[in-house]
Amino acid sequence: MKDKFYTYIQNLQDTITARLEEVDGKAKFQEDLWKRPEGGGGRTRVIENGNVFEKGGVNISGVHGELPKSMQTYFGVEDADFFACGLSLVLHPKSPMVPTVHANWRYFEMYDKKGNIVDQWFGGGQDLTPYYLFEEDAIHFHSVCKKACDSHHSEFHSNYKKRCDEYFWNTHRNEARGLGGLFFDYCKATNEMKMQDWYDFVTEVGDSFLEAYIPIVTKRKNIDFTPLQRDWQEIRRGRYVEFNLVHDKGTLFGLKTNGRIESILMSLPPHVQWRYDHQPEVGSEEAKLLAVLQHPKDWV
Amino acid sequence: MKDKFYTYIQNLQDTITARLEEVDGKAKFQEDLWKRPEGGGGRTRVIENGNVFEKGGVNISGVHGELPKSMQTYFGVEDADFFACGLSLVLHPKSPMVPTVHANWRYFEMYDKKGNIVDQWFGGGQDLTPYYLFEEDAIHFHSVCKKACDSHHSEFHSNYKKRCDEYFWNTHRNEARGLGGLFFDYCKATNEMKMQDWYDFVTEVGDSFLEAYIPIVTKRKNIDFTPLQRDWQEIRRGRYVEFNLVHDKGTLFGLKTNGRIESILMSLPPHVQWRYDHQPEVGSEEAKLLAVLQHPKDWV
Repeated sequence: MKDKFYTYIQNLQDTITARLEEVDGKAKFQEDLWKRPEGGGGRTRVIENGNVFEKGGVNISGVHGELPKSMQTYFGVEDADFFACGLSLVLHPKSPMVPTVHANWRYFEMYDKKGNIVDQWFGGGQDLTPYYLFEEDAIHFHSVCKKACDSHHSEFHSNYKKRCDEYFWNTHRNEARGLGGLFFDYCKATNEMKMQDWYDFVTEVGDSFLEAYIPIVTKRKNIDFTPLQRDWQEIRRGRYVEFNLVHDKGTLFGLKTNGRIESILMSLPPHVQWRYDHQPEVGSEEAKLLAVLQHPKDWV
Repeated sequence: MKDKFYTYIQNLQDTITARLEEVDGKAKFQEDLWKRPEGGGGRTRVIENGNVFEKGGVNISGVHGELPKSMQTYFGVEDADFFACGLSLVLHPKSPMVPTVHANWRYFEMYDKKGNIVDQWFGGGQDLTPYYLFEEDAIHFHSVCKKACDSHHSEFHSNYKKRCDEYFWNTHRNEARGLGGLFFDYCKATNEMKMQDWYDFVTEVGDSFLEAYIPIVTKRKNIDFTPLQRDWQEIRRGRYVEFNLVHDKGTLFGLKTNGRIESILMSLPPHVQWRYDHQPEVGSEEAKLLAVLQHPKDWV
């Protein structure tokens, strides 16, 4: 399973970066290969200063070895070995009319000291963070997410949409990071879902990413915007930073376990603003977005 | 003691904001008075878009009531009441030639359920975060810090300089946030230092702030700078954000205990950049700063 899934994310990284370059029309992904001293490594691909994408990364990694102390505590296990691999992507478009998107699909195995698999699971998801609300875009993104779920289990979409809204919640702001999408974790074998079933589900979600995001980019990338709209985007990007650095388990985990910093923090936006007590005007497009972030809704 | 110290920080806020307005010559502090539902409140003063100061805050607060659950856990106590007050300031100048500065002086009392004081302490410090290294400025700042310490205890300066370097360490970057200054906490009554002695010490440090910082501002505020130097400042500000949101106990504590978000996050810089794997050129002024941040030194 681990080799099969790693091959899958390698190919998916190629497919996604090729399509994003095509859509951007100017910038190319720069690749950094890196090794983890304790075992494994990754292939980081970053795009900067494009026509469409101001900054973004589509990274894969596969790491293994002894389970670090902090992860032992986290998982409540003692001496163990592990393998973990995944694809993580974040794209920050230049235009405030094009939403930021994040996705991650990952697989984890844990072994006893004899090398037997004692636990294994999938996790992941994808979510959309617009700066201006185009309802049809929200409906499109969530519809594609739902379609990827529905042939696997009738409750996956509603469960994982809900968990996404819960996970990407900026508690200190009392608002969502974005419009959500899907979030699932610890997807383990059951009577109903074998590991192969989970593989089929997770890869269908992975395969749906471009269909979920690209039509939105294509539709919005040439809309004119004002400097004030750009300011709003940069202020909202500040909330994105706050979520990733204060609340996001993956980011904090990476930072505190000597992960590859530049690959982890590629998620941070290129230009960001913080203003004191910034409030959008009542009735404005900016206020309309905030209202939806404060009260997540079902789009499909 | 609590009334005396609260009066002290009220007056110090007036003194500091008046002098900063004078130095800025354009922007004025805007004041927000706020109340904490569970007891107490604060006086937030924020300056934005000045000639010298792009964004900054000089805030005082005095809060009291039942010790929140999270603080009970943190201090290892059960049911208790508390009083806490302090002045916190952060200034982000427009010019990369003028350093960012942070300072905080605070006092804490804990009570049993009969209202008896069961514990009390002072804490605080001040530290400098330049974007370009002017050695004479570093020496000046640390000299003023040392002078404020030396009449109270011969070891305070070396101890609190060291603790400052340790505290403002961005572990995930393996570098200091800035050039340090002073950091002290849990300053409690001993045979050698009564609470009044700590009061005298902390207020002398508070009184030294303008002397430590203003001459540096005055000397550097009119130096020309290039767009590339401004980019470097915004990239370094990213590290400031990373420290405050990932590592700073005060910020995280405030965010997780329902503190006043806008007063806490006034510390974040106005314009910030993140670039993938940014490295200054070998031998450049930017590299010179980094070297000092990676290996903190004694300036006096």
